[in-house]
Amino acid sequence: MASFVTVTSPADPRLADYTRLRDVNLRKSLEAEHGLFLAEGEKVIRRAVAAGHQVRSLLMADRWTGPLADVLDSVDAPVYVADDATLEGVTGFPVHRGALASLERLPLPSVDAVVKDARRILVLEDVVDHTNVGAIFRCAAALGVDAAVLAPRCADPLYRRAVKVSMGAVFALPYARMTDWHNGLADLRTAGFQILALTPSAGAVPLDSVPPAGRRALLLGSEGDGLSSRWLDEADERVRIPMNETALARGVDSLNVTAAAAIACYTLLRP
Amino acid sequence: MASFVTVTSPADPRLADYTRLRDVNLRKSLEAEHGLFLAEGEKVIRRAVAAGHQVRSLLMADRWTGPLADVLDSVDAPVYVADDATLEGVTGFPVHRGALASLERLPLPSVDAVVKDARRILVLEDVVDHTNVGAIFRCAAALGVDAAVLAPRCADPLYRRAVKVSMGAVFALPYARMTDWHNGLADLRTAGFQILALTPSAGAVPLDSVPPAGRRALLLGSEGDGLSSRWLDEADERVRIPMNETALARGVDSLNVTAAAAIACYTLLRP
Repeated sequence: MASFVTVTSPADPRLADYTRLRDVNLRKSLEAEHGLFLAEGEKVIRRAVAAGHQVRSLLMADRWTGPLADVLDSVDAPVYVADDATLEGVTGFPVHRGALASLERLPLPSVDAVVKDARRILVLEDVVDHTNVGAIFRCAAALGVDAAVLAPRCADPLYRRAVKVSMGAVFALPYARMTDWHNGLADLRTAGFQILALTPSAGAVPLDSVPPAGRRALLLGSEGDGLSSRWLDEADERVRIPMNETALARGVDSLNVTAAAAIACYTLLRP
Repeated sequence: MASFVTVTSPADPRLADYTRLRDVNLRKSLEAEHGLFLAEGEKVIRRAVAAGHQVRSLLMADRWTGPLADVLDSVDAPVYVADDATLEGVTGFPVHRGALASLERLPLPSVDAVVKDARRILVLEDVVDHTNVGAIFRCAAALGVDAAVLAPRCADPLYRRAVKVSMGAVFALPYARMTDWHNGLADLRTAGFQILALTPSAGAVPLDSVPPAGRRALLLGSEGDGLSSRWLDEADERVRIPMNETALARGVDSLNVTAAAAIACYTLLRP
C-alpha cells in the first residue's frame, strides 16, 4: 500500500524524478540515468501499472487520491501530495491532468524476440518527434500491428509526451530497438519479411497495388527527410499513398507522418 | 513593393498584429476584430500570398529578407525587420521559423456555394484543437476531398497553429462554416449527399462495408466526445474503423481524430 506524504516545496529532493518536465535534454539524461519514465493522468498511470512497471513514486494534487485509490492501494511506493503551485514549481508547467507517476523501465526485448512470432511489423527509422511516435504507436496498436522495431535514433516511446499521446498504447505494442542502423534490415529479410518503404516519391508503387505477403515490415522515415537512401535501397518495394492531382497542383504534396502511418497501417498491416 | 522598416521595441504599436501569439483568447478576439490571420514560415507565407490574401505587414529576422525577396517585391506592405529578442518580445516565444506575415481574411463562401459542385466532403462538428484541424485539412486536401464544412464551434482553420500544421492546405481546400448547427445537415441531405458519421461505436458499419454513393459527406466529431447524438441520429449510416481484438483487450480502443480522419478520407472520400 502506498504511503502518503504532503510536500510543500518544489525543491524537495524527493521530487527529483519530476523536475522540469519540458526540458527535453535534462529529461533525457535524467531518465536514462535512473531508468525511469513518467506517466501523466489517471488513465495512463493505470495502464502503466497494469503493464507491470514498478512504481518509484507518484505526485498528485489531493483531488486525485480518490479516483486513483485502488491503484494506490496496490502499489508500494510514496505518494507525494502537493497543491497546484508546488506541482507547477517542480515540473515547470501547470499539470492539468493533476497526477504523475514515476515508474521503472523494463528491459527492452531484443529485435529477434519481438519479431519472432510477428506477421505485421512497423519499423521506425528516425521519427524524432515524441508526439508522432506516440500517435503512431496508438494507431499501430489499435489496428492490430504485432510489433514495432525502432532504429537507434528514433525518439523514445516512453518519453512523457509520447506515452501521453499514445494513451498508453506504448505499453500494449511490443517493441525493440535495433543497435545497428546500417545492417538493421538484414535480420528482417532473413526472417522472411517483405520489406516495404513508405515514401512520397512519384516512382513508388501505390499502396493498394502491393503484392500480398505472409510477413510484412513497413518502414517509416523521419518527419523532414523521410527514409534514408540506404533503407530505401534495401527495401523490397517502395510504396506511396496516392496523392490527388489537384492537391499537387496547389502545392499540397504530402501527409504528415502520423496521417501517413495511419493509412499505411490500415491498408498494409492489418492482421 | 514592400517597404522595409527596422524595429527595435517589442512595444512598437505597428507590431500590434503580432502580439502574444500563444495567448489563444487574446488572439481570437484580436484576429476577429481586425479580420486578420497570421502565416508563419517561408513556405506557408508563400502559399498564403499565392492564395490571394492581401498582406497587412510582415515581421521577420533580417536573414529571411533574402529568401523571401521575390514575395516582398510583389506585395505592397511594410516589412518590419527585427532581431530575435525583439521578435520574441512581441510574440512571446522564440520564432524559430523567423518570418511572420499578417494577412487579410477573405469572406468565407456560403455552405451552398462550397458544396455545389463537390462530390466528396468532410464535415467537422466540434473539432476544437487547432493542430487537429490543420492536420485534417492537410489530409483532406492531399487525398482529393473537394471541400470541408465546419459546424459553428469547430476551431478556426486560419488560426496560426492550424495554418502551420496544415502546411498551407487551409488555402487549398475550399471550406465554409454553417451558421445553424441544429439543422446544419438538412441542406446536405437535400443536396443528395450520403451522410456518414464516423464513430468508434461497436454497432457501426465497418468502413469497407459502406454502400457506394455518388455524393458523400463524412462527419467527424470532437476529440473528447465524438459526434453529438443529434448528428449521429441524422446520419444515413454510422461507420467505424475496425479495431483489433487484441488491442481492445489491452485497452487501446480508439484512434486520435487525425489518424481516424486520415484513414476515413483515404477509404471513403477519394475522388
